[in-house]
Amino acid sequence: MAPTPHPFDPLTPEEIRKAASVVRPQFPGHEPNFRVITLKEPLKKHMIPFLDSQHAGAASAASPRPPREARVQVVIGGTDDDGGANQLFELIVDLTGDGSVVKKDYLKGRHSYIDSAYMQAVEAACMADPRIKAEIETLDLPPGATVIVEPWAYATDGMIDVSQRTSMCWFYLRLLDNPDANYYAYPLDLCAEVSESLQVTKIYRLPSAEHERIHNNRRPFDRRRTQDVSASEYHPDLRPPPRQTTKPYQVVQPEGPSFTTDGNALSWEKWTLHVGFNYREGLTLHDVRYDGRSLFYRLSLAEMFVPYGDPRAPYPRKGAFDLGNDGAGINANNLQLGCDCLGTIKYFDGWHNTSRGEPMRLPNVVCCHEQDDGILWKHTNFRTGNAVVTRSRILVLQTIITVSNYEYIFAFHLGQDASIHYEVRATGILSTVPINIDDKAPPYGTIVAPGVLAPYHQHLFCLRIDPAIDGHANSLQVEESEALPVDDPEVHNPFAMGYVTKSRFIDQETGLDLDFNKSRVFKMVNEGVKNPVTGTPVGFKLLPAYSQLLLAHPSSWHAKRSEFGQHALWVTRYDDEETFPSGRHTMQSLGGEGIASGMAARRQCGAAPSVRNEDLVVWHTFGSTHNPRIEDWPVMPAEKMLVGLKPVNFFTGNPGLDVAVSTQESNKSVLVDDSSGKGDGICCQAKI
Amino acid sequence: MAPTPHPFDPLTPEEIRKAASVVRPQFPGHEPNFRVITLKEPLKKHMIPFLDSQHAGAASAASPRPPREARVQVVIGGTDDDGGANQLFELIVDLTGDGSVVKKDYLKGRHSYIDSAYMQAVEAACMADPRIKAEIETLDLPPGATVIVEPWAYATDGMIDVSQRTSMCWFYLRLLDNPDANYYAYPLDLCAEVSESLQVTKIYRLPSAEHERIHNNRRPFDRRRTQDVSASEYHPDLRPPPRQTTKPYQVVQPEGPSFTTDGNALSWEKWTLHVGFNYREGLTLHDVRYDGRSLFYRLSLAEMFVPYGDPRAPYPRKGAFDLGNDGAGINANNLQLGCDCLGTIKYFDGWHNTSRGEPMRLPNVVCCHEQDDGILWKHTNFRTGNAVVTRSRILVLQTIITVSNYEYIFAFHLGQDASIHYEVRATGILSTVPINIDDKAPPYGTIVAPGVLAPYHQHLFCLRIDPAIDGHANSLQVEESEALPVDDPEVHNPFAMGYVTKSRFIDQETGLDLDFNKSRVFKMVNEGVKNPVTGTPVGFKLLPAYSQLLLAHPSSWHAKRSEFGQHALWVTRYDDEETFPSGRHTMQSLGGEGIASGMAARRQCGAAPSVRNEDLVVWHTFGSTHNPRIEDWPVMPAEKMLVGLKPVNFFTGNPGLDVAVSTQESNKSVLVDDSSGKGDGICCQAKI
Repeated sequence: MAPTPHPFDPLTPEEIRKAASVVRPQFPGHEPNFRVITLKEPLKKHMIPFLDSQHAGAASAASPRPPREARVQVVIGGTDDDGGANQLFELIVDLTGDGSVVKKDYLKGRHSYIDSAYMQAVEAACMADPRIKAEIETLDLPPGATVIVEPWAYATDGMIDVSQRTSMCWFYLRLLDNPDANYYAYPLDLCAEVSESLQVTKIYRLPSAEHERIHNNRRPFDRRRTQDVSASEYHPDLRPPPRQTTKPYQVVQPEGPSFTTDGNALSWEKWTLHVGFNYREGLTLHDVRYDGRSLFYRLSLAEMFVPYGDPRAPYPRKGAFDLGNDGAGINANNLQLGCDCLGTIKYFDGWHNTSRGEPMRLPNVVCCHEQDDGILWKHTNFRTGNAVVTRSRILVLQTIITVSNYEYIFAFHLGQDASIHYEVRATGILSTVPINIDDKAPPYGTIVAPGVLAPYHQHLFCLRIDPAIDGHANSLQVEESEALPVDDPEVHNPFAMGYVTKSRFIDQETGLDLDFNKSRVFKMVNEGVKNPVTGTPVGFKLLPAYSQLLLAHPSSWHAKRSEFGQHALWVTRYDDEETFPSGRHTMQSLGGEGIASGMAARRQCGAAPSVRNEDLVVWHTFGSTHNPRIEDWPVMPAEKMLVGLKPVNFFTGNPGLDVAVSTQESNKSVLVDDSSGKGDGICCQAKI
Repeated sequence: MAPTPHPFDPLTPEEIRKAASVVRPQFPGHEPNFRVITLKEPLKKHMIPFLDSQHAGAASAASPRPPREARVQVVIGGTDDDGGANQLFELIVDLTGDGSVVKKDYLKGRHSYIDSAYMQAVEAACMADPRIKAEIETLDLPPGATVIVEPWAYATDGMIDVSQRTSMCWFYLRLLDNPDANYYAYPLDLCAEVSESLQVTKIYRLPSAEHERIHNNRRPFDRRRTQDVSASEYHPDLRPPPRQTTKPYQVVQPEGPSFTTDGNALSWEKWTLHVGFNYREGLTLHDVRYDGRSLFYRLSLAEMFVPYGDPRAPYPRKGAFDLGNDGAGINANNLQLGCDCLGTIKYFDGWHNTSRGEPMRLPNVVCCHEQDDGILWKHTNFRTGNAVVTRSRILVLQTIITVSNYEYIFAFHLGQDASIHYEVRATGILSTVPINIDDKAPPYGTIVAPGVLAPYHQHLFCLRIDPAIDGHANSLQVEESEALPVDDPEVHNPFAMGYVTKSRFIDQETGLDLDFNKSRVFKMVNEGVKNPVTGTPVGFKLLPAYSQLLLAHPSSWHAKRSEFGQHALWVTRYDDEETFPSGRHTMQSLGGEGIASGMAARRQCGAAPSVRNEDLVVWHTFGSTHNPRIEDWPVMPAEKMLVGLKPVNFFTGNPGLDVAVSTQESNKSVLVDDSSGKGDGICCQAKI
């Protein structure tokens, strides 16, 4: 008999099958298209006593284990009678025993995330359409080249009824006869819209100059675009041989790694946590504790939004919710050994489902390994010359997603200083649109190759931080460093250089912003637990990533649909159902369902919920205004964004003080051969 | 015969001796105290043709090699006749032939950097003074404890004549009988001032409560402070045994490193540069080129300032210019193998001089090694499933300084994406002052142990960036990303989401600030060299560290003396003598000699110098407002600050595109033993 899943464990294959078997009878006469069969995480009010008892040990094992539940989304295909509209249903299935449906909602007019099988059908519909074929003929394409269609979800722009899906079909040319040739290097000016029922409803030509608009002038493909082909290829088979100068670099852990796992439970250097994974957020961390003390109930990327800044129709329809629309779990790469991760690696698999409700393994979607991060702490007593130095070992939990052209690398880093960092790297290929070779770039894009424009865009991420700092009643404290006044007789500052910190607590749900000029620091604290040394509430502070917020105007669809881009920080009262800052159903959404709207609605119903000594959630919006440079072409070197969480008066001293000193014996560093004969190999431990 | 030094090479031991031998006869009857014998870097107007000819190859070897010169600072001891004042002289010595003095300046009233031998004499003077001994008696210290005196340079506060040195003597207690016991854990309330001539001129007691001022109440040492001794010790001999959970982690480069050196010339992965080192700035990088193209003439930390924010006298006298006053070269640690650096290491030595003018080796002050930095770029073609991934190898050039209680780790990172990063880590021990055990912390400090207050302070760094982007005529361009207007009939923005970049050039020397809300980007460009693909000037952009600037009021001595903390960015016209943003002589300086004053003076003499298509220098001020937390005690886990420089339309594509793909064969990663039997070892190269 399989071991009992931990309440935070993703659904097992057996549970996925069971959920599907319970749901199918709900739709007699239909073959449901199972879009999602995922864990419905237990209510926090049930998890808390369970976790407390688990951590307290066997004696308190009596606390009930929350039941396993599945959240299932199915699409029931429309019939000709009812106009052909698909219907989206969401069901909650209790997996106890044989399983039973405990909730069933018809989500009228809403859409599930992108159905890749459907998108393939959209591609096929485009290529089969005789009008499209005729348009392609007029392009007079180079021989041997293949037309590629890449449908995107339609980002609401107010021009199309959203109750049915519309796909925007972008056309590219795979110039070289190799399936991995970079077709993004040859965007065609052809564009098509495809309806829910796979009809090509519109065909037109894209604007290819700053003052051009959608048109129907059938211009042929400009052959001058194919002069420097290899410059636009990234695949090694299509490029000159790589450099030979980089010598191998290997990481060896002769005694194995310092982490242990028991299923999805992970332990490493005083850290314990539960690794989660779901179709939408990808990697999630649960019940994060240090030395047994509770830090975070849950950490995850909750949404991301990539709006393009090119104002010419139809480009306002490019605004990708890569979690809500695509799924960071579904699109997670298989991190094959030796390529994506380095050293001594453990992989975690994920589980998803087929459209028929069968479990589908997503292998190696999370890699877990250690990494050396330089020096953790050092001090040399100058009086004795004795140096004490420790190295910083970090644990990396990483996942990578591919969403069409782009890749995003998401990694949590745990430190021996009890810090957590969240690093995002953007890489992959820029999204491209055509531009006439003889025209200059409009002011919202960069020409990256002849005839190829890479439009400006933003990458905005929302990290959802559910603190449980020594318990679930937390507060958000904002601290700033402020110069003391100079001419105030009440204030002692005779040398005009004193400064103090000023702090305030946030009482109600709100949006907040960053201000490095004031050294504004956000701390998640437990006012009920005072640090025995400093006397202040124990807490963790945020090290934010300073980023420009959403540029799209508040009246725009981009702004109305995303919402989380209005502020760098949000604080809300915990709610089991408030998990996605742009709402649960982002596909062709109309807005009004995100974090700001939720907050506003709660205010209207009475006072905004208190977040003072309450179960609160902090959401950090960060990202990058990406105005492409040529160095981002044809594939961009990773651009990093980094967020941190560090203890502030949580412990009674440096949590890494007991890390063993760095020694030659342990590190086995090697001196580069040096004819001067230096390097006597004495390591600092010899002096202790 | 020794090889001819490169013009950027630090002085050789022979040159140091020669310089001293040329200087001694300048002071007949005196034994000069040689404070500095260092390279006077050649004038840029002489270096440029030399470097150009070197890089062009042997055929152009005719360009004259700039002469080697030494900058020598000596202190000539005063005699009783002239009041005993030391005299500081600075001489420039031409090292050609037997050497000759080409300049000699008497720097009346100025001081050289801290003389550690003199500071030891200050300590001895304190401890020998009968009044100090009597004060110590009144402290009634625990038996077996040792009083430690730690003199600091007096940071000008307007109360003492600065023409002679004053040392501020802080007293601590080494409680345990071990020379590495952490005496900073027991600050005593005794304070003394010592004059130039080693007289103890003042003795008083430090304020030990918020509203207390300097006083003479002889309170005994509070024995309650010694209850939890090991919590304040960092040395492993004085602490419980370290954790045993961290498994070894080794870096192996079986074919050696990818870098080569020829003396101080360093080559790595298309990068070439010259490694410099001097007593004051420590590690300096010169003539930084990528693929033979000039990027930066010089990069260095040019100053740092650590002002404390405690307004109670005498604490306004704590404001450390750790470069100008102490010297990042002189105080650089010996980075012994295996402890500070990891992997395959090359060390560079530095050379300094003794007070007698003899060369003194500073061994292993810079370490050079590679490091894996995760993924450089990746793309998976979702249509084929073929992934192409390359790993990011970086080159690290690192140095570490100890300045009394604190350590700073300075590292340049070169990337295969042609980026340079500069990372500062602050570690070591907080500066402490006494506080009555029964009093609460004043609003400008944190209690880190009973009776121990760690006052608030700032760490401000100034990175001096001398660009030579494809040549020496550069400009500074400021770009911001701005939403297009919504209701302007002249502007096409029908969906209210368009945005553009707006750029302007900086015409004259000035100070500038950061604004992430506008995604303000500073680019150093060459307007005379256009990128062939984008049509825009080639350049490098700054990735700044967003930091609070100097909190001390502009009227304060801290502000007047430092200057560089007024703005996050400065741009000046290159001047061979403008190298230190708080002036050349920071010891007991009075201000008015820094970057802002220099700029103001030049404006007054006519129009401010142009920095448009000129040889310009960019200075970036960044740092950390450090309000200590208990986790920083007794030794702080490294706090990181990071600055970057990245190409922007400098190349014609991703400069790391030709890095070889990541393979299992090269990386030799290992799968953690897993009973599920997963891990078939297939690596992505197999799919190509």
